[in-house]
Amino acid sequence: MRFLHTADWHIGKKLQGYDLLKEQQYALAEILTIAKKENVDAIVIAGDLYDRSVPAVEAIKLYNDLMIEWNLKEKFPIFAISGNHDSSIRLSAGSDWFSHTNYFLQTRFEDAFEPIEFKETQFFLLPYFEPISARLYFEDDGIRTVQQAMERVISKMQEAFDPEKKQVLISHFFVAGSTKSDSETKIEVGGLDAVPGELLAPFDYVALGHLHHQGALRQENARYSGSPIKFSLSEINQKKGVWIVDLAEGLSLDFQEITPLYDIEEVTASFKELLDPEFYQAIHTENYLQIYLKDRAIIPNMMNQLRKIYPRILGIERVNGRNETKIKRKKIEMKDPKKLAENFFTEMVEEQLTDRQEQWLEETLQELIETE
Amino acid sequence: MRFLHTADWHIGKKLQGYDLLKEQQYALAEILTIAKKENVDAIVIAGDLYDRSVPAVEAIKLYNDLMIEWNLKEKFPIFAISGNHDSSIRLSAGSDWFSHTNYFLQTRFEDAFEPIEFKETQFFLLPYFEPISARLYFEDDGIRTVQQAMERVISKMQEAFDPEKKQVLISHFFVAGSTKSDSETKIEVGGLDAVPGELLAPFDYVALGHLHHQGALRQENARYSGSPIKFSLSEINQKKGVWIVDLAEGLSLDFQEITPLYDIEEVTASFKELLDPEFYQAIHTENYLQIYLKDRAIIPNMMNQLRKIYPRILGIERVNGRNETKIKRKKIEMKDPKKLAENFFTEMVEEQLTDRQEQWLEETLQELIETE
Repeated sequence: MRFLHTADWHIGKKLQGYDLLKEQQYALAEILTIAKKENVDAIVIAGDLYDRSVPAVEAIKLYNDLMIEWNLKEKFPIFAISGNHDSSIRLSAGSDWFSHTNYFLQTRFEDAFEPIEFKETQFFLLPYFEPISARLYFEDDGIRTVQQAMERVISKMQEAFDPEKKQVLISHFFVAGSTKSDSETKIEVGGLDAVPGELLAPFDYVALGHLHHQGALRQENARYSGSPIKFSLSEINQKKGVWIVDLAEGLSLDFQEITPLYDIEEVTASFKELLDPEFYQAIHTENYLQIYLKDRAIIPNMMNQLRKIYPRILGIERVNGRNETKIKRKKIEMKDPKKLAENFFTEMVEEQLTDRQEQWLEETLQELIETE
Repeated sequence: MRFLHTADWHIGKKLQGYDLLKEQQYALAEILTIAKKENVDAIVIAGDLYDRSVPAVEAIKLYNDLMIEWNLKEKFPIFAISGNHDSSIRLSAGSDWFSHTNYFLQTRFEDAFEPIEFKETQFFLLPYFEPISARLYFEDDGIRTVQQAMERVISKMQEAFDPEKKQVLISHFFVAGSTKSDSETKIEVGGLDAVPGELLAPFDYVALGHLHHQGALRQENARYSGSPIKFSLSEINQKKGVWIVDLAEGLSLDFQEITPLYDIEEVTASFKELLDPEFYQAIHTENYLQIYLKDRAIIPNMMNQLRKIYPRILGIERVNGRNETKIKRKKIEMKDPKKLAENFFTEMVEEQLTDRQEQWLEETLQELIETE
């Protein structure tokens, strides 16, 4: 079994207001080229196909056209799941017909325990889910966290393991200790949403989606593929691409890079330099540019003049402020809502939370996430 | 060839704020029962499957579940088109897989000229379209109205006619001279959207969608099926159901009624009578009720008291007003935007429109409709 692992397409996503559809179309076409060149048996998409639960028609058309080409024309089997950005019901419409041509689009938690057997491999397709789904499915009120849920899920999956076969899990969640990027959904509740990597040990490979950096996790049998293109300035130095996973002899992993249609780049220069053909002909003016301006004076109509040369400016910052101090780039910090609430409580009532209060807070935050 | 003809499901539509999903589910289940009892070869759905271009997930789930049952489980071939309420792109996602099991969901104008041949019949599936689509397709700027478009469309379809076969057109538009109901979209541009019935002569049968009353048109070879349930008080006396169309020997048409889960009813009574068990036990209190109240005095907390007995009140009107005059039911009139604009112009500039101005107005209104 040799397959391609991708995830986090987020079709329809914008970058600082710029429509990324063309870039996404380009990168996804590259993925098909890689699949053909690498002669894979199947393509795995580990969730977040769309960026929003109600995608725009252009996004729907792009995804539908891709699947027509990949599955109906090129005959690639597809194993896909919904991520936290997808609406599972909207995405699932039609999926009962898709499976007739080996296009498996799994969006329902309760269907995750029946593996799809393909060649010598069992694929378990586990869509993104909230603990409430596991709580109801296992009829166990004790399941409050994703970790607790995953323990039950994997143990149930193991009942269906065929010792003659390899097992692959396709899933969409946060593995404890992974590194996050700026473009992922920023909500985290005191680790309640994290799954310890050890739990994934029973599988020959775990194809993960959720984090946008392919290097976010380095576990022997588990990888994030990352997104096919960069979604934020913080990803400027990340390599984007797909994993070619081969299970023929043990596990062999090969990361295939995708060259973006327009890359993200940082440029430090004076306004005069930026307008100088000698300067801008030496750089990719079509790229998404974060500009660090060396000037101190006010420049009238600056943005309009720059946009004529650089059509995709992400932002402009002055490196030399009026007070001669370098303006620091604002660091977007991951805020833990539990800590925020605790601090607020302590400041207001000048007391620490009791254990019971802390438990209430945790449960309330968890419920908030689940109903989001 | 014997098929069932239905249309204008408008899944997700509300009636005075009441969710009709349960009623729709009930009526659509009745349609399957009729299809089985009548032993039809196929089911035709002539557009407006959903009420909105972005349907709610509950509506999407209902429609998807229905098609799984009708097509995948019961194996009925389905011939469906998009109507003016449907988003053709959203609806079309997945349709390339559906056709593998004889579920044809046609949403693109340019695909309408290739008939689907089934048994001894050619089905032409023409989705709802605006004249601009025909203008572009035929590369003819002279096509400004639906009538002009339909002349070209039908003439092109005739090129594909097989004289050995019967021809059925499935379409969604307004046939000139048909009777409208209150629940249809209220926009009409000086007859520009009407197709003369004579144009439809080449077909053995035309399965129409758009108007919600099955009796809206009585043409030998063409019928509206009407909606499966009532969508407005004005439809109170309309029979709802589906046509069973048989082309074995000439054309035979049989209208099969659907009994609604909750009907629309008018009740005239005093408040005292309405609260009297003897009165309300004799009527279907679960129905959608338009109440005509005989009282003159102010009744505090009236609605809350009535809702406890009658859960689906559409409206309450007093038949005896304070001035002893009977309050007339407000008649919703079809306003012709062209006439409105002409009147406004005449009032403002105290001149009549010139021919040229009138043409501009007509074209502008047409474009407005097309871009809606």
